[in-house]
Amino acid sequence: MSAPSDIDTLIEMMARLPGLGPRSARRAVLHLVARRESQLAPLARQMQQVAATARECARCGNVGTGEICPICADSARGNGQICVVEDVADLWAMERSGVFKGRYHVLGGTLSALDAVGPEDLRIPQLLERVAEEGVQEVILALSATVDGQTTAHYIADALDGRAAISSLAQGVPVGGELDYLDDGTIAAALTARKSF
Amino acid sequence: MSAPSDIDTLIEMMARLPGLGPRSARRAVLHLVARRESQLAPLARQMQQVAATARECARCGNVGTGEICPICADSARGNGQICVVEDVADLWAMERSGVFKGRYHVLGGTLSALDAVGPEDLRIPQLLERVAEEGVQEVILALSATVDGQTTAHYIADALDGRAAISSLAQGVPVGGELDYLDDGTIAAALTARKSF
Repeated sequence: MSAPSDIDTLIEMMARLPGLGPRSARRAVLHLVARRESQLAPLARQMQQVAATARECARCGNVGTGEICPICADSARGNGQICVVEDVADLWAMERSGVFKGRYHVLGGTLSALDAVGPEDLRIPQLLERVAEEGVQEVILALSATVDGQTTAHYIADALDGRAAISSLAQGVPVGGELDYLDDGTIAAALTARKSF
Repeated sequence: MSAPSDIDTLIEMMARLPGLGPRSARRAVLHLVARRESQLAPLARQMQQVAATARECARCGNVGTGEICPICADSARGNGQICVVEDVADLWAMERSGVFKGRYHVLGGTLSALDAVGPEDLRIPQLLERVAEEGVQEVILALSATVDGQTTAHYIADALDGRAAISSLAQGVPVGGELDYLDDGTIAAALTARKSF
């Protein structure tokens, strides 16, 4: 391998990112090395900036740059609704839809018997505390429609034990979805939950 | 968008890398933010290191950390052969095969009438100088089998005008390739260049 070792090391580090392999990491690094001033140096600075300032919100688990994230700090969003999501990526996805105006709670994963993830490994105790302290009226469970996601949803519903209304995202045909490409389970769920037209 | 602006900026920068889009950049940045100490900070340092030290080899155009790249500096590789490649990625690909023991010359692209790339925009004059100065016996043209690649190959062959032997990579069936999946041109080239068994 003729690449000098500093560049090799950078390629190896980039190849560890999700969605990049050795080949795409090489391409990305070559792209950056050819644009040292305009892209590589600014990217390095930005990464250092984020590494120095990013932290988990003490309340909801979102990433932010302060003790409390912008959503938790925004008093307009304290509307008595908490949306429970598995991870920060899901929180961002919810925010992109722009419909939800309450606050979030990031669990950090789902309960999993196989991976030995119990309630104490997730931020479930913190959720129960928040429901008690923040006057939460509704907990919206926006968890994956997988076995682990639904197990987690049921566990949380049991643990809340009527202290707040509990809802979950509707299941059905995705907007723009063609029936032909949908799995049987989704079609069955959409049919069961059909609405009068 | 709830992500704080520093993280947003980092996502935008990452999304500009080849092979990454907005969605995969978000995933990669979330992965890094969750591993600030173990991955994000070291990656930022490594990028800064490469940004500060990487430079183009003054002789062949490879990237290295010195005035002259390790291959040009290695006297064992001055065997009178120069392999001409389009870019550094191609040089690395040649090096991975481990067969070529001479030196390289990176053109920085191919001649292109459409994109108005002429010989002076590539490192073709430097190649002619090197052939005169370094006692090169053979120039191996390892250029793409595209119209622009082959135009460039013919231009270089004309410009060298017999001052060195000129060869090009063989065309044929790739190792492990199945005929059924090969394009007609490759099969025709492999048949024309058939060898006695």
